[in-house]
Amino acid sequence: MSRSTVEDRARGVRGAARVLAACSGRVRDAALKEVARALEAADRQIESANQVDCARAREANLADPLQRRLSFGPEKRRQALEGLRSVTALPDPVGTVLERRELDQGLLLTRRTTPIGVIAMIFESRPDALIQIASLALKSGNGVILKGGSEALESNRVLARIIHDAAVSAGIPPGWLALIETRQDVGELLRLDGWIDLIIPRGSNDFVRFIMDNTRIPVLGHADGVCHVYLDRSADPAVARAVTVDAKTQYEAVCNAAETLLIHQDELSRLLPDVARALQDQGVALRGCPRTREVLPGIEAASDEDWAAEYLDKILAVRVVDSLQEAVDHINTWGSGHTDAIVTTDEDRARRFIAEVDSASVMWNASTRFADGFRYGLGAEVGVSTTRIHARGPVGVEGLLSSKWILAGAGHIVADYASGVRSFTHRELPLRESSCSGEDDA
Amino acid sequence: MSRSTVEDRARGVRGAARVLAACSGRVRDAALKEVARALEAADRQIESANQVDCARAREANLADPLQRRLSFGPEKRRQALEGLRSVTALPDPVGTVLERRELDQGLLLTRRTTPIGVIAMIFESRPDALIQIASLALKSGNGVILKGGSEALESNRVLARIIHDAAVSAGIPPGWLALIETRQDVGELLRLDGWIDLIIPRGSNDFVRFIMDNTRIPVLGHADGVCHVYLDRSADPAVARAVTVDAKTQYEAVCNAAETLLIHQDELSRLLPDVARALQDQGVALRGCPRTREVLPGIEAASDEDWAAEYLDKILAVRVVDSLQEAVDHINTWGSGHTDAIVTTDEDRARRFIAEVDSASVMWNASTRFADGFRYGLGAEVGVSTTRIHARGPVGVEGLLSSKWILAGAGHIVADYASGVRSFTHRELPLRESSCSGEDDA
Repeated sequence: MSRSTVEDRARGVRGAARVLAACSGRVRDAALKEVARALEAADRQIESANQVDCARAREANLADPLQRRLSFGPEKRRQALEGLRSVTALPDPVGTVLERRELDQGLLLTRRTTPIGVIAMIFESRPDALIQIASLALKSGNGVILKGGSEALESNRVLARIIHDAAVSAGIPPGWLALIETRQDVGELLRLDGWIDLIIPRGSNDFVRFIMDNTRIPVLGHADGVCHVYLDRSADPAVARAVTVDAKTQYEAVCNAAETLLIHQDELSRLLPDVARALQDQGVALRGCPRTREVLPGIEAASDEDWAAEYLDKILAVRVVDSLQEAVDHINTWGSGHTDAIVTTDEDRARRFIAEVDSASVMWNASTRFADGFRYGLGAEVGVSTTRIHARGPVGVEGLLSSKWILAGAGHIVADYASGVRSFTHRELPLRESSCSGEDDA
Repeated sequence: MSRSTVEDRARGVRGAARVLAACSGRVRDAALKEVARALEAADRQIESANQVDCARAREANLADPLQRRLSFGPEKRRQALEGLRSVTALPDPVGTVLERRELDQGLLLTRRTTPIGVIAMIFESRPDALIQIASLALKSGNGVILKGGSEALESNRVLARIIHDAAVSAGIPPGWLALIETRQDVGELLRLDGWIDLIIPRGSNDFVRFIMDNTRIPVLGHADGVCHVYLDRSADPAVARAVTVDAKTQYEAVCNAAETLLIHQDELSRLLPDVARALQDQGVALRGCPRTREVLPGIEAASDEDWAAEYLDKILAVRVVDSLQEAVDHINTWGSGHTDAIVTTDEDRARRFIAEVDSASVMWNASTRFADGFRYGLGAEVGVSTTRIHARGPVGVEGLLSSKWILAGAGHIVADYASGVRSFTHRELPLRESSCSGEDDA
């Protein structure tokens, strides 16, 4: 990699991205296949580079989970290739017609999906993330700037070079992918709102929040995942138990795991002892409000800090509420707008909860753990967004797309409409291909 | 208005917006009708308030165009009511099903449009803008914070109070709309990224750029509009003349007016003299590159500053290019990604231009002046966005919407899919109403 500044390199990616944006889906898919071939051919080289990183991590006594994430063994490499091939197999997301309208006779307006432009991805340790985001960027026609964890330096260098070069050999413009390596480079990157359109950070809450707090570039992601399960009046006891246990324990270290259980006061004695026992059987420690502790006297007391906590651990806060309204208010006050569930057999009450809970995903009689791009059937997951702008909730490759308006006429001018000589028809047309596609491989 | 801080008031709008988001379309439309009725009933009061503002502006010797924008006479008031009624008549944009997918038997995923939450609108002088944005916010179920120009203080106070109270009397939660008044309040507003989801600034380029440069809240808008008309090889001379003249002169003081004319070197003698004459007949002053001035020796020389200039005046920069590629590069280098046009009869070349020009709107044989929400048939215009995130180009009421994922099951848990007991079907469903709408007036 050259010693040019991050800004120079971002400008280079922007230039390449403009050419890449006009590449046909056929060229992009051929490039993805070439990337898979090249990664497979360089398997030994990738393994060696990763072993250098892992050896350094051991010497530096890095924490075990970090060492595990860093390790890119044969099974992870196989899975990464499988992921790459499934991204390749997705339908071309670029050039899709979103709107088509006749403005007047011979004046045809089309809105089509386009790549966003330049995406920056900042991630910690895991080398597989590099392959995933690079392939999603290529599939969607975006230039990409990658910053991985410094502990994965050798792995990332090898992977970035192979992916970049393989795509270029298949006709993608050189410079479409850049790797940056130092912490100072990230600081510079966060200031490049003129060259970078979107940042996707992956890592700990603190890491994501740091990125969000230190850039004007739009950030796709989420810091916290304080998810709730609310057991409403007339909840089915078996569903209450199954959904609560799954939401808390199926994998507790992730953003869509439940952190707080809310329960309607009328259902306390009917539901809580059974649900609590099932949770405790799975090793979950409960922390309760005073009314919870009347039913479960043995558990720790919960404080306001617990309502805000993302434990990411086998701990669950439990609170009794007087009404559905109080449950909604608790969630909108203490939650993070990520994913919240209601358990009830009463459809009207479920509707109210769904309408009033201000979160990206709302579940009815289903576990919060379903909130995930793969489970939602998005084909691939770019991230989970808790903002309300651009994309919300689990985000597939569509999150890497923008759109462009294309107006094709025959010398049409606005003066004719201002003077009343002509008037608009504004006739909606079916979304089939227009003759002026602009995204075909002309 | 109370003396609470801007943050207190934004928090109040956020709370009201959560309730408003769950109001049915019927309630929101009834409120819009009540707002129209109340504005009509208070016509004399609005007139008096505006006359106070206008008198102060005259005393303060404000610039004529500003005084004209400030004046809210009978015709403007009639038009504002007409605009309000046309917003009321739009189909309900909230609750539209965007995706519907069976994840497994009995496990139904739906993505529906929702309000974004809290929109802040900062605008200069014109009181009609207040009515327009308040009605768009109400139609789309968003809370709104308004900051108008200080010179329109009395008009804005009266309008905001009438609109707020009329909507509340029709069932909208109190506090859904707040007016802030001072410049210091704007400074505070720009820091409230915890409470405000989107800022829409309307005003001069410098004003919009100031907002963009001083907040982490997403901004929907555009600073510059440096639009181009490119006369390509095989352009029809009549179309070249009509489109260029319209794009430059139909209304030169707006963002979608052309600022630079590019012309293919092969067409110089065939097209330029005629187009130049037509422009000069309309009082346009041309500034040319050296090759342009060989054909039009009488015109001023253009410098790099001219390629970047948004004149908003009867001035047009003219540059000769060697190729379509050079035209595209010029536009992507010097343009603002707003709107650019090609004039050609060659469809393949038009396609290339459309694919490679990185702008929100690209016109083929049509004037740049069409890039506008009303002309595009969007029903109403929230603004024109030159970012690639969330919304791009002319933005209708859809720009005020986000979405929410709703998953309805029967006790489905992720553990069953992780263990292989169950597997996903991921079957796409038609976008008709699901039984769990969450946005109906339950």
